[in-house]
This record gives sequence, structure tokens and C-alpha cells, in this order.
Amino acid sequence: MLLDHINGPADLKSLTVQQLDQLADEIRQFLIEKLSVTGGHLASNLGVVELTLAMHYLFDSPNDKFIYDVGHQSYVHKILTGRKQDFDRLRMRNGLCGFIKRAESEHDVWEAGHSSTSLSAAMGMALARDFKGEHNRIVAMIGDGALTGGMALEALNHIGHEKRKMIVVLNDNEMSIAPNVGALHQYLGKIRSDRHYQKAKEELSQFLNKIPAVGGKFAKVSSRVKDSIKYLLVHGVLFEQFGLTYLGPVDGHDIQQLLEIFKQADSVNGPVLVHAVTLKGKGYVPAEQDSYKWHGISPKLESNKGMKVVVPPTYTDVFGQVLIELAEKDDRIVAITPAMPGGSGLFKFADRFPGRMIDVGIAEQHAATLSGALALEGMKPVFAVYSTFLQRAYDQVVHDICRQNLNVVFAIDRAGFVGPDGETHQGVYDIAFLRHIPNIVIMMPKDENELRRMMKTAVDYNDGPIAVRYPRMNGLGVKIDSALEPLPIGVWETVREGDSAVIVAIGPMLQVAEEAAEQLKREGVTVKIVNARFIKPLDEKMLLGLADEGKPMIVLDESSVLGGLGSAVLEFYSLHGRHGLPIRIIGVPDIFVEHATIKEQREEVGLTGERVASELKAMMTRRMIRSAGK
Amino acid sequence: MLLDHINGPADLKSLTVQQLDQLADEIRQFLIEKLSVTGGHLASNLGVVELTLAMHYLFDSPNDKFIYDVGHQSYVHKILTGRKQDFDRLRMRNGLCGFIKRAESEHDVWEAGHSSTSLSAAMGMALARDFKGEHNRIVAMIGDGALTGGMALEALNHIGHEKRKMIVVLNDNEMSIAPNVGALHQYLGKIRSDRHYQKAKEELSQFLNKIPAVGGKFAKVSSRVKDSIKYLLVHGVLFEQFGLTYLGPVDGHDIQQLLEIFKQADSVNGPVLVHAVTLKGKGYVPAEQDSYKWHGISPKLESNKGMKVVVPPTYTDVFGQVLIELAEKDDRIVAITPAMPGGSGLFKFADRFPGRMIDVGIAEQHAATLSGALALEGMKPVFAVYSTFLQRAYDQVVHDICRQNLNVVFAIDRAGFVGPDGETHQGVYDIAFLRHIPNIVIMMPKDENELRRMMKTAVDYNDGPIAVRYPRMNGLGVKIDSALEPLPIGVWETVREGDSAVIVAIGPMLQVAEEAAEQLKREGVTVKIVNARFIKPLDEKMLLGLADEGKPMIVLDESSVLGGLGSAVLEFYSLHGRHGLPIRIIGVPDIFVEHATIKEQREEVGLTGERVASELKAMMTRRMIRSAGK
Repeated sequence: MLLDHINGPADLKSLTVQQLDQLADEIRQFLIEKLSVTGGHLASNLGVVELTLAMHYLFDSPNDKFIYDVGHQSYVHKILTGRKQDFDRLRMRNGLCGFIKRAESEHDVWEAGHSSTSLSAAMGMALARDFKGEHNRIVAMIGDGALTGGMALEALNHIGHEKRKMIVVLNDNEMSIAPNVGALHQYLGKIRSDRHYQKAKEELSQFLNKIPAVGGKFAKVSSRVKDSIKYLLVHGVLFEQFGLTYLGPVDGHDIQQLLEIFKQADSVNGPVLVHAVTLKGKGYVPAEQDSYKWHGISPKLESNKGMKVVVPPTYTDVFGQVLIELAEKDDRIVAITPAMPGGSGLFKFADRFPGRMIDVGIAEQHAATLSGALALEGMKPVFAVYSTFLQRAYDQVVHDICRQNLNVVFAIDRAGFVGPDGETHQGVYDIAFLRHIPNIVIMMPKDENELRRMMKTAVDYNDGPIAVRYPRMNGLGVKIDSALEPLPIGVWETVREGDSAVIVAIGPMLQVAEEAAEQLKREGVTVKIVNARFIKPLDEKMLLGLADEGKPMIVLDESSVLGGLGSAVLEFYSLHGRHGLPIRIIGVPDIFVEHATIKEQREEVGLTGERVASELKAMMTRRMIRSAGK
Repeated sequence: MLLDHINGPADLKSLTVQQLDQLADEIRQFLIEKLSVTGGHLASNLGVVELTLAMHYLFDSPNDKFIYDVGHQSYVHKILTGRKQDFDRLRMRNGLCGFIKRAESEHDVWEAGHSSTSLSAAMGMALARDFKGEHNRIVAMIGDGALTGGMALEALNHIGHEKRKMIVVLNDNEMSIAPNVGALHQYLGKIRSDRHYQKAKEELSQFLNKIPAVGGKFAKVSSRVKDSIKYLLVHGVLFEQFGLTYLGPVDGHDIQQLLEIFKQADSVNGPVLVHAVTLKGKGYVPAEQDSYKWHGISPKLESNKGMKVVVPPTYTDVFGQVLIELAEKDDRIVAITPAMPGGSGLFKFADRFPGRMIDVGIAEQHAATLSGALALEGMKPVFAVYSTFLQRAYDQVVHDICRQNLNVVFAIDRAGFVGPDGETHQGVYDIAFLRHIPNIVIMMPKDENELRRMMKTAVDYNDGPIAVRYPRMNGLGVKIDSALEPLPIGVWETVREGDSAVIVAIGPMLQVAEEAAEQLKREGVTVKIVNARFIKPLDEKMLLGLADEGKPMIVLDESSVLGGLGSAVLEFYSLHGRHGLPIRIIGVPDIFVEHATIKEQREEVGLTGERVASELKAMMTRRMIRSAGK
């Protein structure tokens, strides 16, 4: 095995192209074997084996800076930079990160997780290099899907203007995660496949060569014409218009060709775009045929041998299902997704209602404002988006949707911890970044039946924007109501009665609250549990009632403590002059929480029944001491 | 006067083109007269007089939807739709809004203030129209500057893909607010001015026509070649590549030509881009010559007759000045601006350090992440941005800068109320959307001398991102320290001693606190005032000390109460089990505050000395009653 002897990029340099080809095969085998156990992003990494090899063979990381957009296609890079032994703990707690991680290696220079940041990073590094008078290369690898993101286009515009030396590798696999959408994609398709376009260029060139080079006016015109044609007929005209030198397209799986084009790119003293055509899932037949399915794979379930386990559907699936039911009866409903139709559970909706699912590509800002305009014109847009990706549309939510008080429904998936995708994908800020915006209603369901009711509530609501946030997990397997009834806005519910203390919780935290309550019950203490299903508006009546009772209170929310549900409760009591209430917030502290299982992430920050029970006991003890001291 | 008879678009329809020209002159006169009294956006409106006239003459608002990007160029639209009598109260409290305002007129259909939203709005309206089977026109007017914004490019991509019927009017005045930056701008310049390009097209066409149409292979090639050339040689190739039909360039001040091109655009059954070249400030010589200066003008100061008043410099100017001083000694410092070099006080910096001010165009997302990459590579980027526009880079602040803990300095101008720009521009959310992000330090100075010290603190700080926010106003005229000393991170200061209560305040709210304290002093009550100059991290020692004192406390912050400084204080005491403290937050409540003077806006929400004093008295009274009852 050649791979056994590769412990860093230096070990590649002496290999022949044939050996690089062999190494590519070995890396593919390695990825398939490892990822079939651990799970991870298979297809995208199989697609960039040769590209990554060629980069490390020809260029000089870490002196040269390699920037991977999103970073889920960096496994080959990790293998080549001394981390192959770590793949057994890929995306596990304290194990290898599934994205670029600077703490892991000096070869990891720019971290991401969200799409479309690599060109801005490359531009910044190029400027810094030139300020410092250094001469390293900067190579950014970006997929065609990521290129639809507004910030990538902003960066492209700036790169073309500044003309700093850098190489942008366009990894064009015709897919982002879902089949790509948009004019840019069509344009790339044109370059790839339009032989007419290629042929026209050749024919025109031949034709002009045939014209006799006679003197006089005619020749002069002819020469000018040639210049113009040269100017106009470069392929990759869009990138050339942006100011980059375009090279390609090149077969992204042909190492020899890649080495040649990279050498050519390196000789240009300005920004170059190398257009590499790759096959996502290359070398693994099931992934080649359905790279969407194989984009991210889950680890094998070892304990599931022969047993038939009925698993409740995920919240994502429940959302997709109820949206179909609602849309059957309400033809104002349209679904908007920024390139996540599958992840957001919208495939069946799209099948059932062709044309009513609008996939705008990776373009959260546009998706949000588009939803606002649809609402303004009487439609009922449901913007389905992950909590973490909604961060990118914050201004559009404030300025376009909430300020104009438009009837947009936000279906916020992956709220709370997300597990192995780790810190770039945690859905722990949406309450903090939405709650202070006027006009918005924010809900979170305690179970899948309540999610259905909240979607009904949201669709029926015509007084402004309304958001339903739900976690990345399976439902609880609760009974589904036969009739789909909306909820009264801003009304919480008591889900457990108790005398000594109260836990105010939302979503999956209600289970944690129940665990705490059960533990305390065994110790003879009863605890009330409130489902704060409306994060905004708060249930003021219930909160005032709880203040009258004056029991120790814990607010439990798998979100940032700063600015979260707990703060909302504190603000409310302060506003109403209800000081003196013993309130404790348990949530995500002021840190970024890394990849692990969701269970481990909750344990890390203390979102467990045990911790909640022990905090409550401490609060009750302090209270007794204080009372006794009076 | 023709204008006297225009009370709605219907009154235009019977005019001749000559009369429209006359009306254009009258409107210019009207704008110059009115705005010289009230202030407002002069140059941008003078630039679109004919465009707006042609749109209203030919199309049918409000049935046809006119969408104005940003909306500061909508004055002509307002004049033509029955609001000319309202211009005496432009941008004043309860007067005419300086942007599009749906509540003002049925002709106002899409509100903005931030740039680059119009194409997403148009796309949404087109989709809604087609869903509903309606047939109205959709016309979006966007400037060339706004087109560099990522979300406009996201929308363009989607528009080209969907191919819905709509007209995009590119108002190309070669300026956004500052001279435009970027490849897109160069491209537009090329179309405008490159006669070579135009000529090549003509010559090529003539040349090909000269080739005898003989039979055989040669003729076949020739015909194919012509098709290819037609395919390749359209001007506006960039927009065509995006999938829009390109028409133009057309003289944006020639009504006859505009009417013709709009008719042509209207006949296309798909998205059309009409490229109109306009002159910002057209018709008013000072504005034509310096449209940057005349972009927004301030109202005449009537009371300033002959008197020499020494006005302290604005916070913006102080920032610009101290940045020069710091950059003299630290060549890591570079300034980044998203098309706001003047508004952010960076012109002198750019003069002094050519190449060290990077203007990326209207592209806040790219600007933020670019700053992150510069920091990663050892530079000290100072991202100068208005509070309201930083909203657009929220995800980049979270995901790219704070998550990677990069040494970016945020210079956040226009924090707090902004006056006549109104609700789209209020800087009242940055504390709420930044405070929950790990790693960031957030400061606000009490005066211009402290701003200088905070900038020094920020530039010296090498442990992660750090933000200084400052208001849109003049400094207080305080003495400037001769030595520029940094502040200790997270240390507040007591600026007034007192016994009965405490006010914790930041920035200009310290003056409000002083007013309240002075009022109470006259009544024999003394109040402590604390300058909470670090919003994050809090001064924990001081907060615990205040808790020990247990006096009634008011937290005063010209920001959203939800998630603001007050919440931070409440969270802190909750975390430390310091319940029972009487704390009241006074800030911006959960509403959008409209255009008025800053003073009026503060009065509207109760940010006045009188209100603070009266709240404190009420808190002290309640406390006495409670103590008496014990």
C-alpha cells in the first residue's frame, strides 16, 4: 500500500503520476471502508481525491494556503496531512472534526461549515500576503453550488477588481447537496456540454485563418476583428467578465491534466479560475448513482440485528407531512428552500405539488426576502431552513420581513444541538437573534403532535411573521390528534403539577425536565413543569401566576443562555417589577460546542435531568435557609 | 406649471413627450427648492426624474408594481403619486418618509432602506402573480452599486433560472454612494464607454456581410459562424449569461428613448434588464460635480446667523482621526468599508495610507469574512460599518470571525437612534445580535476621548474580536488626553457618586442619566451613575458590589430592551443567585421607531432624564413601602 507511507505532503513529491493514480484508488478504498463504519460525507470526498492529490503534489502546504469551501470535502486533505489514523473517530467527541479545524493541523488554515466563505477568505489572505510582501500561493476550492451564495459573488466581484494572484478551483460536480438551481448552474452546464459553443470557437478561428492576409482596409478590419473575437470568445466568459482568468474545463479525475492546468494557473500573475469537472461519489457505484443519498451517511447501527424496531418519524418528516396536508386545503402555501429540499423534508411536498416548492440554491438572503414578497402578495410562504443557516438571513428577517410585518412562516429545523456536524452547525442562536425583532412569533413544540398543531397555527396566522423551531431528532411516538387544531397564540401549558419548584422548558428539554422531576419525586419533592411553547409572545398570565407562587424556577433551553428564553423571563419580571424571584437559567453557555453526539453535547453543558434536579435542590435549600433566618 | 395639475399617475397619461420634458424640469426645480430647506437625498432623486416619469407614463401603478431598491430615490415617485404637498415635512416626525412607505400610498409596494433587496422582492412578486394567474407588470429599479450586494446576485441567478416576466431597470449612475468598486462596475463601465467593443461588433457584422454567400462548405461555416457570433456578441453578455434579456445602454435622461426601450422591454415574455445611464445630481450643477457630497443634504441651520459656534467633531470624525494616529504606529492596521468610506470617516485615512483602506462595495458579508482572513494572517483589520448594515454580516461574525476567534476590530457607527433615516437604519439591535456570540468584546464610549481610548484598546487587543460602537452625533467637546492609553477590558467606571439609587448607562445615555440625577438632586436624592463601557464582558466585580448595596437600579441603553445590556445584567445576577434586586430596564421597546429627530425618537420611547428620574422615584417609593411593611 502506497498510502501506508504517506504521512505528510512531502511524501507525495517523489511519486510518479501512475503512483498518484494508484494512491487515489487506495484513498477511495480507505474512505469507503472508514466511512461505512463512522458515517460522514462520503460522496463529496470521493469527488475530490485527484484534485486534492494534485494540489498537495504540486503546491507547498502549509506555506501555500489551501482553503476548502464548507470543508466537508477535506477528508482527503486530512488523509494526506498525517491524520489517517484518526478516521476511526471521525465526527466523534474529541475525535477528528468533519470540517477543517485549525487546532488539528498546521495544514488546516480556514475553518468553515457554512457555504460560500472561501473566496472572501482567499481574498483576505491574498491582501495580507501582499501587505506583508510574502509570496505564498493561495488556493481556494469551491463547489458550483457554493458559488450561488451571495457572499461568494461579492467576493468574486472584489477578486476581479483587485487582481491579486490566487487560484480558485471550481469543483463542478453539478450538485451542491441537492441538484443545483439557478442561472449560474445553467451557465456551467453550457460550458461543460455545449459542443456548439466549443465548435463555434474552433470554426471561427479556422475560418478567420483562411482569410488571405492581404493589405489595405480589409486586412486591418480582419486583424481588429480577430482581437475582438479573442476578447469576446474566451469560454468561461462569465468569470472573465468578473475579471478572473478562466482555465478549463478539465477532467477533475485526470491527475496528469490537473497537474498541467495547475502549473498553467500558477504561471498567471493574477486571479485564475480552474474549472474542474468532477463526479460526486466517484469510484463508489451506489454513491455515483445517487450522490444526494450518499452525501452524508450515518454510521452502521450495530445493535439492530434482525430486530424490528419501530422508530417514530423525525421532526423533519413530520413537518414535511403536515405541510402537504395543509397545502391540500390552502393553495396560498408555497415552500421555499435554500438548496435543502431533502434535509428539510420537502421531497414529498415537491412531488405532490410540482411548482409549489421553490429551491433557490444556496441563497438564504434571497430566500428570505423572496418569501417576504410572496407573503406581501397574498401567498403563504413557508421558508424551511436550518437554524444555523437562518443566521445568514438575519438582516432580511429584520429589515424586509418583520419590519414590514409580512406573513412569512419560518420552519426552523435543526434547532438546538445537532451532533456530529459540530460547532458550525449548532442551532443554538436563533432564539437570541430572533427574539428581539418586533412582530415575530416564535414557537417550539414539545412533541411531533404539537409540531403539527404549530404548523397549523402558523399557516392560519395572518398577523405577521411566525416561526416554528424543532430539533434534529425523532419524534416521541406520541398519538397524533385526528383533527388538526391550531394553538392559541402565547399560551403555555402546564404538563406536570408540583408544589416545590417549577421548571419552564421547551422542546426536548421537557424530557430533561421530566427526568429531573422523576428523580426529585423519588426524594419526595414534586415539581411543576411548564411547556413554554411560545417563546414570543410569552404567556404573561402564567408568568405572573408563577411569580405569585414564588417557587424556585429553572428555565431550561437548549440555546444560548445569553439572550435566550431565560432572559425573556427575566426581562418580563423586571418590566413588571416582580423582583426577588429565584430564577436560574440552564442552557448553552457562552462557548462554541464541538462535534459529539447530541447526548454528549447536552451532558457537556449540563442539560441533564440530574443536573437540573441538583440545581433545584440547591435552590430549595438556599430558600429554606433564608426563610429560617428571617 | 404642469406639476400643479399632477395629482396621480393618471394625470400624466395625456401629456406629450415635450410636456414630460417640461415636467421633468419642474420636478427638478421642486426637489431643489424643497430639499434645500428640509434636507434629504437630492442627487439620487435628480438622477431618476425621467426614468420615474417614463415608468409612470407607460405603465400602470399601483396595478403594476414598482419596486425601488433602497428607496431613497423614490421622491419623484412620491411627487407623481399625490404627495408633493407633503415635502415640507420630509423625514420629519409624522411627516413624509424618506424611503418607500406602504402606509403612505397604494403606489408604495415594497419598503427598504438597506440595499440590494429589490430583485428578491420582484422575483417573489412575479412568482405570486403567476401563482395567482394575474398579469400585472413588475418593474424593479436598482442602482449599479446595489448590484454588488450578494443578495442581488443571488436573486439575479434565480431570476435567470425562473425566466418570469419582469423588468429590471439598472440605474447606472457610476456611483452608489461612494465611487463604485469591483469587477461588476468595471464591466458596466466597459459597456458604457468601450467604443472598441461596440465597434468590433459593427465591424464584424459588416465584415461578415461582405463575404459572398456562395454554396458549399464555406457558406455553411459562415452561417454557423454568424449564429455563434450572434450568440456570443450580444452586449450585456454578463446579464445575458445570468439569463436576462439585456436592452441598452440607453440615455436615462432622454424620455423618448426611455419610452421606446420600456415598450420593447414590455414585449419580452421573460426577465429583461434595461440598462439606463444616468447622471446623479442631474440638473443641479453643484450636485452633478460632487454627487457624493450632495447624496444626502442636511437642512439649513436657520438659527446660525453670523454667530461662530464651535461644534465638537462627530464621533465618526474622531474615529477617523484616531485610526490615522494608530495606523502611523502599527502597520498591521487596515480599514475595510462596504461602500461607506465617507460616512465612516475614512477619507482622510485613505489619503494618508493609500492602499490601506479597502472598499469592497456594498458587500457587508464579504467585508466581514475578508476582515477575518486578514486577521488570521496577522493584519489588524478595522471593519468600519454602520450598526444597521452589520446586521447583514451576522452569520459571518458568528461563523467566520467569533468562532475562529480572529482579531477583527469592529468600528460600529450609527449605534442607537439615527434620526431622519428612520426605522430601516436604527442602530438598536447590534448589542442584542452580538452579545450572545462567544469570544467577542463589545464597548461603547461615554465621550470622544473615551472613543479614542477604546480604539487604542481594540487595536492593542490580540485575544479575539472586539467591537466599539458609537452614536451618530457630535462629541461632547471634552478634553482629549495627550497620551492615548488603552482601557482595562471589562472594567466599568463610576462617573457620579450617590446614595439612593444607581443608574447603569452607556454612551449618550450617560447624559440622560446625569439629567435624571440632577433633577433628583434638586429634590434631595443622590444617585450613583455607572458608565458600563464594556457591554461584554461585564464588570462582574462592580455588579456584585452593586448587588451588595442593593439599591434600586435602572439600566439605560438606547438599544432593544430585549436582549440588550439590561438583559445582560439580569442574566448575570440570575447566574450568581443574586435574586431580589430591584432592576428596571429603560431602552427601546419591542417596536420599530420611525423617522424623526434623534431627540424626538428618544422622547417617544422614554429615554429622557425626566422619565428616568420618575421611574427611580417610583422604585424608591415602592422600596420604602416594602421596608415599612416588614
